[in-house]
Amino acid sequence: MEIKVLKDILSANDQLAQGNRKLLDDKGVLALNLMSTPGAGKTSLILATIERLKDKVSIGVIEGDVSSSIDAERISREGIPVLQINTGGECHLDAVMIQRALGNMPLDDIDLLLIENVGNLVCTAEFDTGAHRNVVIASIPEGDDKPLKYPLMFTVADVILLNKTDLLPYLRFDIDAYRRSVRGLNDKVEVFEVSCETGQGLEQWLSWIDSQLKRL
Amino acid sequence: MEIKVLKDILSANDQLAQGNRKLLDDKGVLALNLMSTPGAGKTSLILATIERLKDKVSIGVIEGDVSSSIDAERISREGIPVLQINTGGECHLDAVMIQRALGNMPLDDIDLLLIENVGNLVCTAEFDTGAHRNVVIASIPEGDDKPLKYPLMFTVADVILLNKTDLLPYLRFDIDAYRRSVRGLNDKVEVFEVSCETGQGLEQWLSWIDSQLKRL
Repeated sequence: MEIKVLKDILSANDQLAQGNRKLLDDKGVLALNLMSTPGAGKTSLILATIERLKDKVSIGVIEGDVSSSIDAERISREGIPVLQINTGGECHLDAVMIQRALGNMPLDDIDLLLIENVGNLVCTAEFDTGAHRNVVIASIPEGDDKPLKYPLMFTVADVILLNKTDLLPYLRFDIDAYRRSVRGLNDKVEVFEVSCETGQGLEQWLSWIDSQLKRL
Repeated sequence: MEIKVLKDILSANDQLAQGNRKLLDDKGVLALNLMSTPGAGKTSLILATIERLKDKVSIGVIEGDVSSSIDAERISREGIPVLQINTGGECHLDAVMIQRALGNMPLDDIDLLLIENVGNLVCTAEFDTGAHRNVVIASIPEGDDKPLKYPLMFTVADVILLNKTDLLPYLRFDIDAYRRSVRGLNDKVEVFEVSCETGQGLEQWLSWIDSQLKRL
């Protein structure tokens, strides 16, 4: 009974997600769903991406948070369209929330839509938002065992940014073991080692975005 | 309709949680529910606590994970009773899972039960497990804005361990601002600054456990 309810919700969500994706396709907007634990660096990555791409690509941002609008305020200072979704306790963004947000986004004027999901390595992976690609931001301080403990997230990822590599000298983190664990779950995903703090490795991420924009 | 279902589930959970707490009280076992983001240091804290207390206090551990038994294996090497709960995708522990686990724990032989919840800063806070106290492990690399973004977790916390203080020299983290944010949500919670890596600050945590054991 409980399972049935959940299945119905997921199926309704999938239909709405497909509708979102079709609208984005029609408008020629590439949408990326950014997921991570709290504090892995989603907002820092968005800010670093805006800084490097805003003269070449028109960017919009949807900010998902359980509460507060701290991140949306940080991003709106960059002078690009940003929409805050407060989930009011919900642990993930879903396709209904994104559908409503898209209705308030100037889709004719943007090429790239960055969706910052709620910080959560479990539930966010279960709900299709309608974005074209799933981007997982992992971080060195989280430890190298996370793919084994939270496998669904790493299975649905199209690209993984392993962030905060500037902290590698101060922490134990086996990058080879990490890459092997990821590969065991998902043999298509790309893993980029980056530091949003120093900018190191971000060129791979920017090239990847460029390649995805060209595919659209 | 959907809200009603959720309410029913929560109410059933609360009743079971009360049953768990009564059983623990009858057996004279103090149970602590450890919650955090993935990778903040729950397992490291459990290991550090076992190392320092095991000659004085009989400890048992319940390990909650979406998948894998890595942490339970690490802890079982310490020669103390440990039970793994794999939630099979579920993003939190609930009172039913703990009820089953308690049935397989040697409650007559232990004084302190450490329950490691799933790494999740949202959903775990919503479900009473039947533990006596909620312990939140925060960590410096997560950033000082987490209480504002995930307020429920900091509202239900009885004690917060701000872990990985050994990384303070390499990161921006305003401890005063953090403490103010926490205080704004919860004026009873205690905040201990610790490093499970160096052991710094752990004596406050151990004294706190001691005070809670005496209250039981």
